[in-house]
Amino acid sequence: MRYLTPTLSDLEKAAERIAPFAEITPILTCSAISEMVGAELLFKCENFQKVGAFKFRGACNAVFSLTDDEAAKGVATHSSGNHAAALSLAGKLRGIPVHIVMPSNAPEIKKRAVKGYGGRITYCEPTLSARESTLKIVIEKTHAFEIHPFNDEQIIAGQGTATLELLNTIPDLDVIIAPIGGGGLISGTCIAAKGINPNITIMGAEPKGADDAYLSLAKGEIVPQTNPNTIADGLLSSLGKKTFPIIAEHVSKILTVSEKNIIRAMRLVWERLNIIIEPSSAVVLAALLEHPEENKEKKVGLIFSGGNTDLDHLYW
Amino acid sequence: MRYLTPTLSDLEKAAERIAPFAEITPILTCSAISEMVGAELLFKCENFQKVGAFKFRGACNAVFSLTDDEAAKGVATHSSGNHAAALSLAGKLRGIPVHIVMPSNAPEIKKRAVKGYGGRITYCEPTLSARESTLKIVIEKTHAFEIHPFNDEQIIAGQGTATLELLNTIPDLDVIIAPIGGGGLISGTCIAAKGINPNITIMGAEPKGADDAYLSLAKGEIVPQTNPNTIADGLLSSLGKKTFPIIAEHVSKILTVSEKNIIRAMRLVWERLNIIIEPSSAVVLAALLEHPEENKEKKVGLIFSGGNTDLDHLYW
Repeated sequence: MRYLTPTLSDLEKAAERIAPFAEITPILTCSAISEMVGAELLFKCENFQKVGAFKFRGACNAVFSLTDDEAAKGVATHSSGNHAAALSLAGKLRGIPVHIVMPSNAPEIKKRAVKGYGGRITYCEPTLSARESTLKIVIEKTHAFEIHPFNDEQIIAGQGTATLELLNTIPDLDVIIAPIGGGGLISGTCIAAKGINPNITIMGAEPKGADDAYLSLAKGEIVPQTNPNTIADGLLSSLGKKTFPIIAEHVSKILTVSEKNIIRAMRLVWERLNIIIEPSSAVVLAALLEHPEENKEKKVGLIFSGGNTDLDHLYW
Repeated sequence: MRYLTPTLSDLEKAAERIAPFAEITPILTCSAISEMVGAELLFKCENFQKVGAFKFRGACNAVFSLTDDEAAKGVATHSSGNHAAALSLAGKLRGIPVHIVMPSNAPEIKKRAVKGYGGRITYCEPTLSARESTLKIVIEKTHAFEIHPFNDEQIIAGQGTATLELLNTIPDLDVIIAPIGGGGLISGTCIAAKGINPNITIMGAEPKGADDAYLSLAKGEIVPQTNPNTIADGLLSSLGKKTFPIIAEHVSKILTVSEKNIIRAMRLVWERLNIIIEPSSAVVLAALLEHPEENKEKKVGLIFSGGNTDLDHLYW
């Protein structure tokens, strides 16, 4: 089976499809931080997206791309994070049931978010195989349509709409840096940016403690993530079969970052921009702090993935 | 001596004067919080103002209202808070020296902010009389022009520009709630709102632990604040001779709030809006949490004073 990579035109259709539901998120600047890294930074703030994360774009596009027949029995996924909440809200907006398989040890706040949007949770053991087998059972029982968090064309197309907005407002970016988990966000970023302007450089940012994308690009094939160890809890997944080829084709470089710089970047943004971003967002700024030789004097768009973080626990 | 109260036209001039320097701050909404309090809330976000607080509006207007002769020797004030940073930046923008008298025990972060904008600090004992006498000495020596943090027509006019922006965007507000410290912000709010639409209700929000404005309004004269006890460190001052009459004429009611509700409101905003506000901002939402009978079903503008808070210390 050959996978069809989404095109710029798919992204434009996605943007139209999600427009009634998703936010056009603000783009912020901060002269103090720009001076500190010696580049002109523009922050695309998906922490202000619905459910507090870019994930709503993809989930919304996927849910509203379904035919009435496909959607009738609802949708299903396994996720302990923002995709679960995003899919729950998207399904609620379409008026269909949403089935979420979640590890029993998922944070209480994530469970509450899913329930708050009407998602139906099935708990499982906290292993990938338990998640997958439980999801299979749920789908066999409900005949719900599976929507994978990143290995899905409509998800990728939806995530790419953030970059369409960014380039609509700031067309002359030299570089865009996006975080890499399963690769859905950066794949959409590549298709949007390269489709609009092939000269834009795309870089990924990844924790050293979960550097499977860095290793995969070096090896030329997917290297699965094992035992990730990072506070950036949105970036733990391995790349998918649909995201890897897009990343391999378009991403110039993956900048890996220490936990110390993730925390430093997160605090800088809280303090200087007065906004709350999650650790997975902070990796893109951490990449500039840790690799100051890259992107000097450039005009750089940084994509903040979201703002869902535990306010009972500060990392500094 | 009779004080001249600023008029709507003074505020409009202030808006024009500060336009090249100040931010037009965003107005945010949050359906979850609106539902929780049973009113339609619009948050005017001065945490996104320069120096992270509304104080920049007044300081900028005051500094740029000076004649060249008045400005020549610089400006001076005593402040341990946002006014010190705001005046330092405004003076820097005009290219004049700024002298700040600050108690020696002021938070390190405030000292750094002032120095970062080029303000010249003179330290004094942490008492009001030491601050006043030290400021007097500084002014005798430098011949700088004193700019009081709130008891000043140009400061009041500048602070009112936040409400001009709010009503330009959302003209049909029923109520506006602003925090009360020395009264500069709410005085400007009154002049803007009542000047544009006399039917808008203005309410103040004040910590129970610093309720001098509540007591002053009840008594019909200024009751000085003694021994304030609240985390809302921007709201510790007594009202001024220029702010009290404006507040007495226009403010319908002052809603006092517990520390518990300030913390609850602050957390709600961090969590739901993904923005950082300081405790003095949170009092306006705390007022609706603590007095749910007020403003039911109304369209309410809430003015967030700023976002400068200690990120090493969570209140929850």
